[in-house]
Amino acid sequence: MDVIAKENLTGVLLALVSSGFIGASFIIKKKGLKKAAATSGVRAGVGGYSYLSEPLWWFGMITMIVGEVANFVAYAFAPAVLVTPLGALSIIVSAILAHFLLNEKLHAQGVVGCVMCIAGSVVVVIHAPEEHPINSVLQLWNMATQPGFLFYVASVIVLVFILVFLYAPQYGNSNVLVFTGICSLMGSLSVMSVKALGTALKLTFEGKNQLLYSETWFFTFVVAICVITQMNYLNKALDTFNTAIVSPIYYVMFTSLTILASVIMFKDWADQNAGNVISEICGFIVVLSGTILLHTTKDFERSSSFKGGYAPLSPTLATRLYNGSSEFTTHDEEDAMLADQISLQRQG
Amino acid sequence: MDVIAKENLTGVLLALVSSGFIGASFIIKKKGLKKAAATSGVRAGVGGYSYLSEPLWWFGMITMIVGEVANFVAYAFAPAVLVTPLGALSIIVSAILAHFLLNEKLHAQGVVGCVMCIAGSVVVVIHAPEEHPINSVLQLWNMATQPGFLFYVASVIVLVFILVFLYAPQYGNSNVLVFTGICSLMGSLSVMSVKALGTALKLTFEGKNQLLYSETWFFTFVVAICVITQMNYLNKALDTFNTAIVSPIYYVMFTSLTILASVIMFKDWADQNAGNVISEICGFIVVLSGTILLHTTKDFERSSSFKGGYAPLSPTLATRLYNGSSEFTTHDEEDAMLADQISLQRQG
Repeated sequence: MDVIAKENLTGVLLALVSSGFIGASFIIKKKGLKKAAATSGVRAGVGGYSYLSEPLWWFGMITMIVGEVANFVAYAFAPAVLVTPLGALSIIVSAILAHFLLNEKLHAQGVVGCVMCIAGSVVVVIHAPEEHPINSVLQLWNMATQPGFLFYVASVIVLVFILVFLYAPQYGNSNVLVFTGICSLMGSLSVMSVKALGTALKLTFEGKNQLLYSETWFFTFVVAICVITQMNYLNKALDTFNTAIVSPIYYVMFTSLTILASVIMFKDWADQNAGNVISEICGFIVVLSGTILLHTTKDFERSSSFKGGYAPLSPTLATRLYNGSSEFTTHDEEDAMLADQISLQRQG
Repeated sequence: MDVIAKENLTGVLLALVSSGFIGASFIIKKKGLKKAAATSGVRAGVGGYSYLSEPLWWFGMITMIVGEVANFVAYAFAPAVLVTPLGALSIIVSAILAHFLLNEKLHAQGVVGCVMCIAGSVVVVIHAPEEHPINSVLQLWNMATQPGFLFYVASVIVLVFILVFLYAPQYGNSNVLVFTGICSLMGSLSVMSVKALGTALKLTFEGKNQLLYSETWFFTFVVAICVITQMNYLNKALDTFNTAIVSPIYYVMFTSLTILASVIMFKDWADQNAGNVISEICGFIVVLSGTILLHTTKDFERSSSFKGGYAPLSPTLATRLYNGSSEFTTHDEEDAMLADQISLQRQG
């Protein structure tokens, strides 16, 4: 493969598999929810838990977990500037499957958005920097403690504290940028620590035990802290604002900050020529625009009857995975149809 | 400049200047038309010619001619695979100026379309092949008479004949692809012959007189034939179908065929690596998608009160330049506003 750097190939394939699984998991879970609602007559949105006895829903859940694991492993094999934007492909898989399996109409502009995400991803993949071989978690520790990255981490922490303690109480419920900002800032640290942890585990499996180093456990601790904070505030964001607003804003901020963090920590662009860096940025902008287009035009965006889940590293879909109560307060066409169907069955 | 091949720099700058002028010319002409309508009370759309005495309209006309000349010269300095896609930038200039000067609302998706066109153009420019130095029109003649390109020309002529004599009489008025297909096929030959003629003139100005060769005159003859056919059928397309439908279809077909023709005739991609070619194609797809998005969402697309003009090499805007009667049969908000204003003045 001349087009993709050899070192990145495994990571790219894992990221693609991950997007495929995560994208498909939504459709499978949704089919499960519909089936459960149709048989029991109580929808998840109004408090029913019948979906827990529906095998299709569990199959969807497993599909999603497999996708998340693949995503996690991808970070151990390829730069974050490559893996993170490819996450956008899961929304394409979801949109296309929803069109064929759930009869959710994909608008002409949604098709343009899909084409965009694919073209942008190809440009990103072609121009991504090669993954530098890492032999020990101590190497990662040195990268994480270089002045530039420490400055980034300090800025993130200060900003998060300001947002949490000064802005959240006053503007959290009126300005969508407060909660999504906290999530995105923490998210960029999540991905960096996930990448460190993933690489440490990969080295351990290769026979170079990294669990002996306290640095590995420190990274694990950071992963836990970041992911919990991220989940907490994403729930708050989804409880307060519409999914259709939160999703694209979160995706753009999360991905941008992750790329910024990766460029500072891993010096991804240090030995790249200007053409490569500019192309990569353009590809990234194209993916972002395509995602925004899909989020603002897709029907299924507004019909999120998903229940349960966890996908902190896939911001495109993560916002539709949480138990946000707001997800169940809006009745769109499809929900209405489902309700009609249920009431018909009851009458019958 | 490391990012853009040195040989292409002049061509890129000329193409950008051209897009700026062509994009601005629309807004100036439209301002002229409005002013003329407001003073005389008769709109161009209902048969008025008062715009001919409006200096602003003439200024717009001159701006457009300057832009077209710059576009023509650009083809002499850079590959067609570079100059043709950059034509899409004129629509951005137009959209942005319309937003600020004519108060025509640019939708959020229009903004995404603009970002798209710019990002795609940057990718196209970075990965464009270098222009091979040409010393004589005879070199171009050899390129044009190589078997591969002769086969392309023959296919185009056969297809055009089939469309003109078999399909046009029966389906011309019901299927938008017939007339736009003829225009696009002829358009790809126009650009190739314009590039040959432009290069011949450039060499002549440099002191190597190419007017002595019959080949130069043959290319001139081909330019004339192609441009006349193209104008004729574009008029027919615009007389029969809505500008908003014709524009994006024409742009996509014209640009794709031109790139195909250029790749066959100039072997643009022969000494490029796979990554460059794929990036260039992706950049091109992104520009196309952005253009479609702008065409389908922009307000000003539907309000084309333009009169007179000629822009066979800028398909993005060309479709709004002709004297198509259909351009004046649809009354959109703005036209209605203008009409109201005129009737108010008459009453007053």
